[in-house]
This record gives sequence, C-alpha cells and structure tokens, in this order.
Amino acid sequence: MPVINVSTPSATYDVTIAPGLLRTLYPRIRKLSGSKSPRLVVVTSPNIWKLWSKRFLASFPTPPEVLFLPAGERFKRLPAVERLAQELAVAGADRDTLLLAFGGGVIGDITGFLAAIYMRGIPYIQIPSTLLAQVDSSVGGKTGVNLAAGKNLIGSFHHPLATLVDPELVLTLPPAELRSGLQEAVKSAIIRDPALFRFLEQNAKAILARKPDIKALTRVVTASIRVKANVVNIDERENGLRMILNFGHTIGHAIEAATNYKQLLHGQAIGWGQIAALHVALNRGSITQKQFDRMSTLVHQYGPLPPFKAQASRLVTLTASDKKRRSGRRAFVLPIAIGATEIVFDVTDEELLTATQSMLATMRQLTKS
Amino acid sequence: MPVINVSTPSATYDVTIAPGLLRTLYPRIRKLSGSKSPRLVVVTSPNIWKLWSKRFLASFPTPPEVLFLPAGERFKRLPAVERLAQELAVAGADRDTLLLAFGGGVIGDITGFLAAIYMRGIPYIQIPSTLLAQVDSSVGGKTGVNLAAGKNLIGSFHHPLATLVDPELVLTLPPAELRSGLQEAVKSAIIRDPALFRFLEQNAKAILARKPDIKALTRVVTASIRVKANVVNIDERENGLRMILNFGHTIGHAIEAATNYKQLLHGQAIGWGQIAALHVALNRGSITQKQFDRMSTLVHQYGPLPPFKAQASRLVTLTASDKKRRSGRRAFVLPIAIGATEIVFDVTDEELLTATQSMLATMRQLTKS
Repeated sequence: MPVINVSTPSATYDVTIAPGLLRTLYPRIRKLSGSKSPRLVVVTSPNIWKLWSKRFLASFPTPPEVLFLPAGERFKRLPAVERLAQELAVAGADRDTLLLAFGGGVIGDITGFLAAIYMRGIPYIQIPSTLLAQVDSSVGGKTGVNLAAGKNLIGSFHHPLATLVDPELVLTLPPAELRSGLQEAVKSAIIRDPALFRFLEQNAKAILARKPDIKALTRVVTASIRVKANVVNIDERENGLRMILNFGHTIGHAIEAATNYKQLLHGQAIGWGQIAALHVALNRGSITQKQFDRMSTLVHQYGPLPPFKAQASRLVTLTASDKKRRSGRRAFVLPIAIGATEIVFDVTDEELLTATQSMLATMRQLTKS
Repeated sequence: MPVINVSTPSATYDVTIAPGLLRTLYPRIRKLSGSKSPRLVVVTSPNIWKLWSKRFLASFPTPPEVLFLPAGERFKRLPAVERLAQELAVAGADRDTLLLAFGGGVIGDITGFLAAIYMRGIPYIQIPSTLLAQVDSSVGGKTGVNLAAGKNLIGSFHHPLATLVDPELVLTLPPAELRSGLQEAVKSAIIRDPALFRFLEQNAKAILARKPDIKALTRVVTASIRVKANVVNIDERENGLRMILNFGHTIGHAIEAATNYKQLLHGQAIGWGQIAALHVALNRGSITQKQFDRMSTLVHQYGPLPPFKAQASRLVTLTASDKKRRSGRRAFVLPIAIGATEIVFDVTDEELLTATQSMLATMRQLTKS
C-alpha cells in the first residue's frame, strides 16, 4: 500500500493509495482526527453518493451528516460556498468539525476552500473519486473557486489532514473522464518522470481497459501523485518549481474559458494545451522534433481530444488573465527533454499565437481523418 | 511616533501611530512594498473617500485605482467580496498587486479577506479610519465576512504588510462612533491594562472632547493597540490567550444578531455585552462588588449605550452559534481584577440568562431616568 508524504512549511500529511480503501474509511479517519468520536460532515455530489454511499458508510458506526453539491465546474463559485457554509453553521459545525470531501475535483476544491474559510479554518480530508482528482487536485493544498473573470481566481492554500485514494473508484468512471484524468498523468510524466513516460507509452491498453485488474492504473496514479508531492514539497507556494505543474495549462485554461467551461472536460482542454505548449517548445528549439513527436503522440494516445471552436487570437488574449503572471510577466513551462522542464518568462504573444494555430491545424487534420 | 511590532509565526509587521500620517502615505507604502513603483488598489467607502481623498492622495505621484464598497455591516458578505474580486481581475490585478484598505472595520475585514483569497493571497495594508478599526480590527490578522447564520463565520487569518494609524482621522467621526470605538479600548483596559483603565477613568473629558488636541485619545489608541499586539504575539490563532479579546463579545454578538446588525453600533453592543459579562463575574465571585462598580461605571462613562428590544432567553439562545465554541464547549472570558482575566468553559446557560436579565434591568433603569 503506497503511502506518499507531503511535507511543506505549513503542513505534513500522507496520501494513501489502496484499492478497496473505501470500505475501511472510518477507523482511518478517526485515527487522523485524534478524537474518539470525531464530528464529521461529508460534502459530496448526489451522483457520487448514489453510486458509492453504501461502500463509503460500510465502516461507520453511525452515518455522518451529508451535504450535497451538484457536480460540474459551473457550480464552483462563491455562492455555492456560502450556501454550504450556511448549512454547516445551521448544523452546528464548530472548529473541531472535520469535513470529508468525497468527489471529483470540483467537490475537492470547494470543500477544501470551505474548510479554509469556515470559522477561519477547520480540518478536512480528501477522498477523491475521479482520476483527475486522485492524480492532481486532491494533493498539494490548493483550494478555490472560479470568478466570472477566470478559473480559480479565488482560493486558499489549505492542506487536508490526509488524502485517501481508492483506485477502485475509477472503475465506474466514463471512459472520457478516465482519459481526461490521464492527461494530468501524461503531464506529470512529461515534466518530471521519464519512467512514468515510458510506462504510459508501453501500457496504454492495460491502463485504459482497467482490466483484468487496475494494477497498471494504480501504478500510474501512484507515480503521478509522487511527482506532485515531490514538487509541492520543494515549493509549496508556487514561487518557482511548482509552476511546472502548470504545463499545458496556460492555453488549456484559455480553451476552457473560450468554451465556457462546458464543452470540454478539464483534462481534454489540458491535452490541447499541452499540444500547444509542445509547439512553442519545438519552435524555440527547446526540444527536438523526435521528442516533440513522442510527447504529442502520448498526449493523443490518451485522447481522443475532442474538437472545439475558437480563434487562435482569442485564446492568446484569454491567457492575459492567467494568474501565474507576476507584475505583468507570464511564466511559461517548456519541456527540454522527456521528463524535464524549464520555466521561462519571455514567451511572446506572437509565439503563443503561432503555436496555438499549429494546435488548431492538428485539430482540423484529426477531425478530417 | 509610536511603532508597535506584531510578531507571530505567520507574519511580522509594524503598526505605526502618528497624527498627520495620512499626508505621508506614499513613501511609506512604497518602502513597505519593496518595489519602486508598486501596483496599488485602494478599497474604501464613498463617504470616507469624499472626506479624505485629498489628504490621502497628497503624497502620491499618480493616483492609484480605487474600488468602492458601501459602508455598513450588512455589506460585509460574500457577494461583496465576489464583486470586488471580479473588479480586481478586470483591472488586471495580479499576485504582486498591493491592496490598501482605507476605512472602518467593515472595509478592513472585507479587504483583508479579499487579499487573503484573491489568487490565493496577495498583500495588503490597513489604513483604518474609525477608532474601532484603529484600536481593534486593523491589528491581528483576522479577516472575514458574515453569514446569515452569524457574524464573521467566514474568514481567514491574513496579516497586513503594515497598519498605518492616523489618529487625526477620528476628528470627523460622529460622537456615537467615537464612543463605540472607545468601548474596545475599555475592553482592553479591563482585560489586561490597569494603567489604561485608570487613564480612561481620569481623562474621559479630554478623550471624548478630542480638544484642544488629540493627545489623550492618541494615548488611548496606542495603549489599546499595544494590548492587542501583545496578546496576538503570544497566541495568534486563538488557541488560548487570544480568547480574552472576546470579553463582552459573547452576549455582544448575540445582541447584534437579535437587532439584525442595524440598530446598534458594534461598540454599543459590546458595551452591553461587557455589562452582562461583568454580571456573570460578579455572580460567581470572580470580582468584588467594588470592582464590578468601577468597571461598569467605566463602560457607561463611554456610553450612552442605547436601549434595544430583545428577550434575555433569545440572546442566550443566540450565543449557541458563537464560533469560539470548541466541540460544543463555550469559552467565556471573565475579569478577575482590574486589568486581569481568566477563560472558563463552565458558564451555564442559566448563569448567562441571569446576567443578561440583570443587564436588561440596568437598561430599563437607565431609560427611565
């Protein structure tokens, strides 16, 4: 059972990855809480709860309070946080109440933020149900919601007491969501893990099939979390290294904004964003054509990335509000080899435009064929 | 020019108190920002800006961007934060933007919270314009907004880069607001500063008159901030000692809730809350009748505390949602002498009810006479 430690100046906690873990939640949570009878409130979505509540509750002596939030990026806004906070207050939750975030990235981000600001901070545990949340958003302490002006513009750093990952949860994920989550695994491989890169290249079939067992997928999840934890341990607050986790996200976020967060799954947008970023890298000579081919092939291997409609110039304009900017400068993450990256600040709008046009050309080609 | 240092595990900064300071803001802010041309955004209320913008801007080479928030506790809610955040994003504010909170407690609490959660945290400076904000809310890093379910139930600990206090700003305050602010000074004296207590007893006339100069008032402001900073330096996160700052606030917050945050100024509600808390202390023998008399006389000296309508039982019920509770236990602050307090956890609802009834009896007596 892999246990990966996150250790930053503001918190230390473990990410536990174990198939079947969901049936053994309560004793783990009680131990983490340090209380004999912790006061628990679950935040989840109706869909997740319908599928998994029986297994989730199997180890609980008495069922905890459950608050619901509809799934979907469009609910990741402050009014949802206010409503949940009001429900917590009405339920009598105090500073010793422990929240359990059970769901995908939206549930985890909102619940983490709710925990960060309810009574100026209460503890929470991440129990991610989607692959995307397991490999990325449930680790690292970033929490938050969107503004009309952009994604994740409101938030806090607030680490969970623990992240509990049961890879069996992804057995019921629709294939598109599985593939969307795997784009973040591809990202982890490209930026920092050549061994994971090769494993993803060579085991796509077993990983995507989730059959006969989920060993291959569990290995991908574990390696991806290890990359994330390792980066966060070095740079919790994104003053430097942590920016590499943003690979593919500059254009990816612009694509999500241009399509109103409705048309593509997050991982699909990030997939296209990685293609665009690879073009920037190729055009500057940061990577060779051969490296470009291997990396873009891997991205598409975990596709298909669905087509969408947007002007290249519009996408570039939308990157201007990217919150990775500091004093007007845009940080951009470029691969320099398989599993190695650099952060640069001099990528021009023209370079971005050219690369985005190449990405859109690829999209047209794929749609034709 | 008194400079009081706040030094906690999460931040170190200075509170500077100087009459006339408002005319010299820009060089101070530039130095604090560490930038030659800091990107600044002021958050203020239309009223404050109308009165003071000329003096505020006197030292600025170019005027900064200004965002407005109407004054008043009823605007201290999440939708106001969302609107301001959206305006910041539209104005292109990034992680290096420095917010200037210029106004009373509501402006300071909201702007501090906005700074805490905009892009997961940007810097801000407190420039409090009311006495209440100067002696209390602008120091200590507590930021936040209200929920329908209660006051300050949403928030963060986020310290300012500095707090800049110009006592001349209180020269234009309506007398009721001045007296409201002085209730927090009275509180500081009761809980921790016998010398300030005596000074408040003996100089009420000069303090309240703000004439011929504001030396007496400046001394009260400075001493009150020193109490607050000293307490926060020992216990930033309110795990122990910091709870003493809550003296008078258990019933005070209940009074504000019962009157819909509209009828009384914060300090007026806290004044009544102090009277109720003094009754609890007297009834248990924590203080003598003579100590009770001196303390309640001082509270009324900085009155008048206006009457309001509420059942004692209703007020006690409303204390149940007080966020100082931990696992259902209510922390209650009791004076044990002039300038000394203890925190107890065994004050019963019956004791609170009796004390609240005594407070209401005093109110009826004062209204008659």
